This record gives sequence, C-alpha cells and structure tokens, in this order.
Amino acid sequence: MPELRWGPLRRRWVIVAPERGKRPSDFRAPASSPANNPDACPFCPGNEHLTPPEIARLPGPEGGWRVRVVPNKFPALSPGPPREPPGGEFFQRAPGLGAHEVVIDSPDHHRDLDELPLEQVRSVVDMYLRRLAALSSDPRFCYVQLFKNHGREAGASLSHPHTQIIATPVLPPEAEARLTAARDFHSAHGQCLVCELARRELEAGKRVVMNGEHFLLLSPYDARGPFELLILPREHESHFTRLSQPAAFAHTLREALSRLRTLLGDVPYNFVLYTAPQGPDWPGVEAWYHWHLEIIPRLTKLAGFEWGTGMFINPMPPELAAEYLREAKSGG
Amino acid sequence: MPELRWGPLRRRWVIVAPERGKRPSDFRAPASSPANNPDACPFCPGNEHLTPPEIARLPGPEGGWRVRVVPNKFPALSPGPPREPPGGEFFQRAPGLGAHEVVIDSPDHHRDLDELPLEQVRSVVDMYLRRLAALSSDPRFCYVQLFKNHGREAGASLSHPHTQIIATPVLPPEAEARLTAARDFHSAHGQCLVCELARRELEAGKRVVMNGEHFLLLSPYDARGPFELLILPREHESHFTRLSQPAAFAHTLREALSRLRTLLGDVPYNFVLYTAPQGPDWPGVEAWYHWHLEIIPRLTKLAGFEWGTGMFINPMPPELAAEYLREAKSGG
Repeated sequence: MPELRWGPLRRRWVIVAPERGKRPSDFRAPASSPANNPDACPFCPGNEHLTPPEIARLPGPEGGWRVRVVPNKFPALSPGPPREPPGGEFFQRAPGLGAHEVVIDSPDHHRDLDELPLEQVRSVVDMYLRRLAALSSDPRFCYVQLFKNHGREAGASLSHPHTQIIATPVLPPEAEARLTAARDFHSAHGQCLVCELARRELEAGKRVVMNGEHFLLLSPYDARGPFELLILPREHESHFTRLSQPAAFAHTLREALSRLRTLLGDVPYNFVLYTAPQGPDWPGVEAWYHWHLEIIPRLTKLAGFEWGTGMFINPMPPELAAEYLREAKSGG
Repeated sequence: MPELRWGPLRRRWVIVAPERGKRPSDFRAPASSPANNPDACPFCPGNEHLTPPEIARLPGPEGGWRVRVVPNKFPALSPGPPREPPGGEFFQRAPGLGAHEVVIDSPDHHRDLDELPLEQVRSVVDMYLRRLAALSSDPRFCYVQLFKNHGREAGASLSHPHTQIIATPVLPPEAEARLTAARDFHSAHGQCLVCELARRELEAGKRVVMNGEHFLLLSPYDARGPFELLILPREHESHFTRLSQPAAFAHTLREALSRLRTLLGDVPYNFVLYTAPQGPDWPGVEAWYHWHLEIIPRLTKLAGFEWGTGMFINPMPPELAAEYLREAKSGG
C-alpha cells in the first residue's frame, strides 16, 4: 500500500509508492523509450486482458470500444478505508488512499488527441467528465487531478495515447495555492480572477493564440517554459465537471495540441487541469474559482536552480511563442 | 536583459531570459549530450579565452589554476541598477537583476567532485564560501542560490564538472517556505527545527547513511525521489558562509557523491544549498535557521501529476535507500 508522508522542512506531502522488488540497478538502467509495439501494448484492442479489470468504456462498433478506463497497474494511490486526519507530529504519515485511473484515448496506438477525429476527442472529454464526477463525489477523496503525459521526456511509460486521473486524500499544494489566489483576489476586488485575466489578455491581445466563442487559448504572461499554453472558458465556470461547452472544449484542446505539433513536431508535453474541489471546505467557490487547463511542452530541463528555488527560467517570451502559434496552421 | 515576471494565478516569479535568436526549431531539435570534447571545452585549461572575463581563481602550479570562477555566458540574471519594489499590479515585472556565476570545479574535464582528491574538493568549498560571501553582501540581491547540475538529465549543458551560483533580487519561494517553516517551528517549540530533525534521525537511525563528527548524511523521511540525500551540520549553524568545518564538509559531500556513484554509476544529479539570507528581513535568523544541502539523483521523471499538484511520487522508501547507501563502499 502506498503511503503519504509529510516532513517538517518542506511541509508538503510526498507519496511513497514502492514498486515491488525494484533494486538500485533498476533505477540505474537508462530509461528505455515507451513500448511502441502494438502487439505487446496493454492499451491496444485485443489486449484488454493485459489491463486490470475495466472501470468504464464507451462502446464502439462490433462490440469494441472507443474509450476505455482501467486502473493504473502501478497505482500511486489505492482505494482503502477512510483516512484519519493527520496529527501534529514531527513526521506525519497517512495511508496512501486514493484512486489512479487511466483513460485510454482511443484504440489507435499511434495517434494522439490532435490526430484523432473531433468526435473521438469529444468522447474522451465525455469520459473525463464522467470519471471526474464519480471520483469527485467520493467523500474519501479531497481532490481529483486530471493530467496527461505524452512522450518519454514528459514521464510517459507507455506510448499508446492515454490520460490519467489521480484522486488524493489531501489537497495538493499547487491546487491549494491557486484556490487561495483566486479567493484572495475575489475578496479584494469582488470579481473572479480568471474572468479578469481573460479580459486583460483579450485587451492586450499579444499573448492570445485563439479567441474562440467559448474558449480562450493563450500563452500566459508568466509562462514557465517555451510555448506553455492556457485554456480558459470565456464564461465563468468553477467546476470542470459542469462544463457547458464540451464540443467547443474538445475543439480547443485538439487545436492547441495540433498547433504545437505543427510548430514543434511530436513534442513531449504534459497537460494538467485545475478545477474547484467538491465538498464544504471552500465556501462560495462557485463564485470565485474558474477552472483552467495548462499545456506544458517539455522543452527545457528542470535543473538545480528551478529545483532549489521553485523559480523557472523561460528562454522564450510568451508574446513571441503566441505569435509563432498564431501562425502555425493546424494539421487537422 | 532578462526580466522577472509575476502572474496572478501562480503568484510566483518567473525569469524570462531569451537566448538571442533562438527559434522554435532550436527547441525542437533533440537535446544533444553535453560537449565532451576537451579541445572545445571552455572550462578546460588552455581555453580560458573562451569564457567571459574571470571573476576569481585559486592559483595552481606553474601559473595555472585549481578553481576558476567566470560569469555564465547565458546568464539567467545580470547585474544592473537597484530594483524598484514591485507594485500591486495584476501582471508584475521587474528587471532581471542578479548575478550568474560558474565555479569550475577543477582543470580536469573528466572527474567529478567525488573523483577528485579531497584537497581539491576543499578548494572548491573555499571558493563557494568566497563567492557566496561576496554576493550575499551585495544589497541589490535578496538571496543567493548555490547549485550543481551533473549530467544532461539534470540540466547540465557542459560536461566539465562545475557548480553554479545565481543571486536573485527576490526571495525564491522554496527558500521562503523553508525559512517560514523554521521560524514557525522555533516560535512554537523554542528550538531549531533542523537540530531537532537531526536528533530524531539519529535516534531512529534507519535513514542515516553516515554519522560523522561534524556532519550527518541521511535520506530524508519525505524524500521526493530515490536516493535523495540531505547533509546537515551537527552543530547549529545558520549561514553556510559561516561554515566552521570546511574540511569535514568537503569530506561529507565527496563521500555522499562517491557512494551514489558506487551504487548507481554516473548518475545525473542536482545539489542545492539552503542557507539563511543576509540582511534585515528575517530578524533572529541566526537562532532558528540551520543551513542544509540536498542532493537529488535524477532517476524519475517529473510528469503531469507532479507538475500539476506539486506532490512527488517516490518509488523508493528512504529507509531502503539509506540501507543501500550505508552498504555502498566509497570508491575514493
């Protein structure tokens, strides 16, 4: 069973999730490329028996599937009994309670979201919504993180395109920081921080990549690396699970990834969703939190300075990145 | 000139430091291995003209040098006029004022700190102390970060062993978090957090790798990755620049890196120093802050979950890592 640990120097939770029997030499071996052989790929059609029992699927033609959800075979966190609140100890620990699911984006081993038909991306988004709703309403969990690792440099260990969802029994520090920022801004100014951000970015224009009817795609003012992107719903919306324009969101996400591919090729990237948590801990969150999704191409290394300080060094101004991405024609 | 930027969603400074003329295709190209050709290496003896003008040196035999300090050719931050305090703007910016220096660890292109004679490591430590003292006393800077990138995966762009120092005009968030944790603990318990940590770790024993007369080497309770290490002075010491046992510190650092090499080979790693800042902003810091140095082997990828949440997933419990490292004989 994984374990959560909290130490007094950093005051942040770490997940200790030993993979059984792994020895120093296993870490030492050069990381190989993600398995690229569809015959042995557990996410390919025909190999469904290679995954743990299925959690959900969207059915496809001839008894097949369009999207499948399975538990992660090496979960960072696992379901278990309700957590006890951590004590005030010097070193704290908590059971590694949670869920770790994999959304298999499509039966196609070789095509990432931006290369799939729009209807397929829409199906993937529908599945995100369904699993996020299920996990968010589980009172054992505090937060649900949706993210994607694409490419080995971005942490993907399997190359068949997939998305991951981890439910955690504690509020992650980055989610808490953003919730606090939005709540503070609302207290001080009586308005939603992200609504105001969208207004200012549209006014400035230079960091905007696409200005859609329902979504804004931009490279943020304080981008941490080259070609970092932010997707915002134009209308105020606190919880991603209440997404009112799923088709437009699928289009925006696909277009963003497609433009990155046009400009940078098959670039390793992560995307991460920031959404309001369920539950009573953040009263009024509907008024002041505004979900958003970040896409982070992994083009620079996290080195000692970033690791030590928590500050990033970005060699590409976001205004210039946005200019390149406005010009990059979508491949689809 | 680099620029500091602060955005309202994350509320953390980012350094935007464009490298002149870099185009999307330059990011797209697969990162090559650090130049490993001593003839073209700007840090090798005989190539001193390839670096910007030297800042400091420790002389060696026959007019040579043992340790050299030069400005970084692509500085993240540069010296300039005194900063203006940032305003309360929605998007904040500040000049990228600072210093970015490189300590060339020795004339030897091929040997990292743990493979050099102890006296050479001692000379390197002396140079750290000298440059940190000089930069820390400059009132234009708020904090000085010492760090090392070893290996491409850890962000090194040149393979000749070197260490870097960046002085920043703002207090980095990670430094601030640790200062606050130590100050809070001292307020609540009337003692130094790191002294108490050392006492508890010695009592528990299982995470201790080396228990020296002056320094403790351990894998921390909340290690973020496999074989993460922490070096602490046993006697309370707030500022690294007041290091009372430089020879013992050089020995401990060399031994830690040597054991990692014995166990893991030429593993990519970062080390980062956390020390108390100079100046009047943290009254009483001498009593409650206790410098420490972290060594982070880069064996796992930072993926979407870590990026999105700020929580790390460690597949190797530190108790087991410490056991392996206690058994690993030092190569030197």
